[in-house]
Amino acid sequence: MTLIDKLQWRYATKKMDSTKAVSQEKVDQILEAVRLTASSSGLQPYKVLVITNKDIRQQIKAVANDQSQVTDCSHLLVFAAWDNYTAERINTAFDMTETIRNFKSESGTAYRQMLLNTYPARDAEVNFNHAAKQAYIGLGTALIAAAYEEVDCTPMEGFNPAAVDEILNLQTKGLRSVVMLPLGYRKADEDWLLNLKKVRRSKEQFISWIK
Amino acid sequence: MTLIDKLQWRYATKKMDSTKAVSQEKVDQILEAVRLTASSSGLQPYKVLVITNKDIRQQIKAVANDQSQVTDCSHLLVFAAWDNYTAERINTAFDMTETIRNFKSESGTAYRQMLLNTYPARDAEVNFNHAAKQAYIGLGTALIAAAYEEVDCTPMEGFNPAAVDEILNLQTKGLRSVVMLPLGYRKADEDWLLNLKKVRRSKEQFISWIK
Repeated sequence: MTLIDKLQWRYATKKMDSTKAVSQEKVDQILEAVRLTASSSGLQPYKVLVITNKDIRQQIKAVANDQSQVTDCSHLLVFAAWDNYTAERINTAFDMTETIRNFKSESGTAYRQMLLNTYPARDAEVNFNHAAKQAYIGLGTALIAAAYEEVDCTPMEGFNPAAVDEILNLQTKGLRSVVMLPLGYRKADEDWLLNLKKVRRSKEQFISWIK
Repeated sequence: MTLIDKLQWRYATKKMDSTKAVSQEKVDQILEAVRLTASSSGLQPYKVLVITNKDIRQQIKAVANDQSQVTDCSHLLVFAAWDNYTAERINTAFDMTETIRNFKSESGTAYRQMLLNTYPARDAEVNFNHAAKQAYIGLGTALIAAAYEEVDCTPMEGFNPAAVDEILNLQTKGLRSVVMLPLGYRKADEDWLLNLKKVRRSKEQFISWIK
């Protein structure tokens, strides 16, 4: 299958088979894709929590409209964005870059200073929203990487973020849950969505060419 | 190359070769991946503008910190999100679903009504931010699809969105520019970033397992 075939194959799985687990190898590939994807200024302002623990997933399900995939999946990914951009977080990222590349550049120093001058002074909510968008790049990457591995998944915004933050104790870590992605396998005979046509706007409606 | 190899190969290209153009076929594959990717409630609340026109790209470059990729690329993608969720937009999406699938369901009608009851009443900025996040799923998808096609690209937030909106006349279409993605080919001997190590937080820092 080409990548496009795999994107045709994928869908927001509504019923997962709780008897089937995604292999460690495939989960690692999906997570590695997310780790390698792009983020604004390379800050990677989010973490991915991978929850296999049943009790915790049961608690999350209760604040996620009782969606069965939360407990029927084998791995629940929770994308949790930084609650703010702080000088410490920005400096840690730039310090890491200098360490890994083993040099300091004038332009790098100027860029770091530009971020230090602008980001921490902004409202925390503005910064969180910006960080959350980077997590959505990660989500878009995870979706394709899962399809590539022929693993099913369900992007999920329908949950109470504050409640999930409490269950996962995210506040003390300076994180806020943004979006979830259960990974698992479709239970074909019990999924009402599986055999319905994929609905997308046409190319003509979705794309505008300016030549 | 595996998908992970391709993600290692990709980087935020700083210098593109203005003499090389991405083929129509490859651009179409990248756009198709974006069209097929997921969005909240399937609303696809954004459009992708594909700009090959040189004059317009010159104008955009002037409000995008003069970044050379805007004009050196062959195709500039601009992701433009809905400025708001309106009843009309929500109804259009659900009507399309019913037409394509050729049936109405009680649950579909209830879901439509739930969105009609909640989204349009919210502040336009909240809705725009939500729509923008969906565009970032598209960006994350486009990034991988480009890498898969071995096409270079540069995710770009560093521009004046209001100025780009004016150049592209987006306001009259109910759209606001969110993020851009030039597609092209690296000019290897003039790109300072190409040979620098990719910097990412370690797996241990980026991922938390809750077992």
